[in-house]
Amino acid sequence: MCDRSREWHSEAMPLPMVHPRAGMPERVSIYEVGPRDGLQNEAATVPASVKVEFIRRLLASGLQTVELTSFVPSSWVPQLGDAEEVMAALGADATTAGRPVLVPNERGLERALAAGAHEVAIFASATESFAQRNLNRSVAGSMTMFEPVVTRARQSGVWVRGYVSMCFGDPWEGPVPPSQVARVCLALLELGCDQLSLGDTIGVGTPGHVERLLQELAEYGVGPDLLAVHFHDTYGQALSNTLTALGRGVATVDASAGGLGGCPYAASATGNLATEDLVWALTGLGIEHGVDLRALVATSTWMSEYLGRPPPSAVVRALADTAG
Amino acid sequence: MCDRSREWHSEAMPLPMVHPRAGMPERVSIYEVGPRDGLQNEAATVPASVKVEFIRRLLASGLQTVELTSFVPSSWVPQLGDAEEVMAALGADATTAGRPVLVPNERGLERALAAGAHEVAIFASATESFAQRNLNRSVAGSMTMFEPVVTRARQSGVWVRGYVSMCFGDPWEGPVPPSQVARVCLALLELGCDQLSLGDTIGVGTPGHVERLLQELAEYGVGPDLLAVHFHDTYGQALSNTLTALGRGVATVDASAGGLGGCPYAASATGNLATEDLVWALTGLGIEHGVDLRALVATSTWMSEYLGRPPPSAVVRALADTAG
Repeated sequence: MCDRSREWHSEAMPLPMVHPRAGMPERVSIYEVGPRDGLQNEAATVPASVKVEFIRRLLASGLQTVELTSFVPSSWVPQLGDAEEVMAALGADATTAGRPVLVPNERGLERALAAGAHEVAIFASATESFAQRNLNRSVAGSMTMFEPVVTRARQSGVWVRGYVSMCFGDPWEGPVPPSQVARVCLALLELGCDQLSLGDTIGVGTPGHVERLLQELAEYGVGPDLLAVHFHDTYGQALSNTLTALGRGVATVDASAGGLGGCPYAASATGNLATEDLVWALTGLGIEHGVDLRALVATSTWMSEYLGRPPPSAVVRALADTAG
Repeated sequence: MCDRSREWHSEAMPLPMVHPRAGMPERVSIYEVGPRDGLQNEAATVPASVKVEFIRRLLASGLQTVELTSFVPSSWVPQLGDAEEVMAALGADATTAGRPVLVPNERGLERALAAGAHEVAIFASATESFAQRNLNRSVAGSMTMFEPVVTRARQSGVWVRGYVSMCFGDPWEGPVPPSQVARVCLALLELGCDQLSLGDTIGVGTPGHVERLLQELAEYGVGPDLLAVHFHDTYGQALSNTLTALGRGVATVDASAGGLGGCPYAASATGNLATEDLVWALTGLGIEHGVDLRALVATSTWMSEYLGRPPPSAVVRALADTAG
């Protein structure tokens, strides 16, 4: 039987009851990656006008930080080949704090600065295998490539985030030692990065691993105030891992509206931690986040209708009918 | 781009790295509810022969406890109207410890005993609204109905579990006070139940709420050794809530192979915590569980092919191609 008792019968959209938990931050800053990390994985390119509408709706739902696009060559990622057009259409919404853009190299930075970006992100790897495959150079070689990017960004007064991918496991190398992640983090901080985002790119981490990595990073002087976490939900662990990181003092969390970001045609079909599922947990824990869940669910529902498939986010699937 | 780096490139099936976490139990007993709580929600009735094969495969994957079926009248739940046939086909596999069956009342218990069941479960509610709708009587009236069931089961040497549904929120009543849950738990223990399973039937709980409920129950004398937890993933919180309960001493967890148990046609489409996602987390935390993940994924993949739709479990979706 489809048990109707499992649906909410009041007029209001259901929300979790608020029960704070000891040791959690009072406020979490959500770093929304849907328009970039989400849409770059779509088989079909989403038109710039739809991207702009998506970003505008995300901002209107209360998200303070939205990664807008990527200034990689369009031959690498055709899905984001319209970065200038998106930035121009957003106007003043794009050229302010809280609107980072991805830049792969100096040429990308030049384009981002010309488009008026105030914040940029570079994309490093904790492993040699992924550095070779994604950046076509060694980890050390990638630092050489990033050095002038970070230096010039900072000279221009631009805030810089460093993504560190493959922080838990690597599909070619297997488990990734925390000390190896620490070395890459220290190198990025040495270059001048303001914040590092620890990525579990293939989603294999579990809570004890998260605690171990954060503890080891702290011993290397990389404290939680310098860090964001970026979990993928490939094995259903993203929210548990995120909450574990919050319990260790991390207060910036990457998430993707609707859970966008998976590859619809590959075995590993799930993407980033869904922003809505994160917001549900934060709300229940009494942690400030500033997001209007109803507006965010409506936005992800709209985008999922555009993309023509249901979103991975459990909250969006459960509430799509109740969000206006 | 569909980033191929997110797929595992070694021959072996990926597994999480083992990093234990302080304060967790050494071993968790998984209480598998797929054949009952999962299949009772299927629109089309699964033939007894397929149920028997499903149960046999679940047992072969190492699961120690599998809830086999329900002895409710087939007019209530036609999907499980073949309880006697399933039990008979399972033979000695069904009439041993670790093979509970649901019984709604004395008539159900008679049928279960006649079929050789050694363990039974009754289904209570923490709220008056759900007791009325699901059991057609008040909470007090349901205890009167259960009293002879539990008494007679115990006289027959049969172990009794009491499900307590709506322990966090109720779709008609909203938030459910922990003290109200405690009263129902104490009444079931007074009747003679050996174990209670706390159900978040509509999936609204979050970790602080789980801690609060378990703490309040402990203050009423209902300690974690008497408890199992039963989370639904409606809002993506099931695993986080489960791990929170483990941190408070609970060591029995209800889960459903593949995440079976949702209603495919309703807004609340997700079902129980997926056993595979739980097993991934337990493995990473170094907690013993006894399950062969590869065999379990193969079983859920087989069942999902039978049912004709992808399973909610993230682990099954990610590993379906690698489990043989």
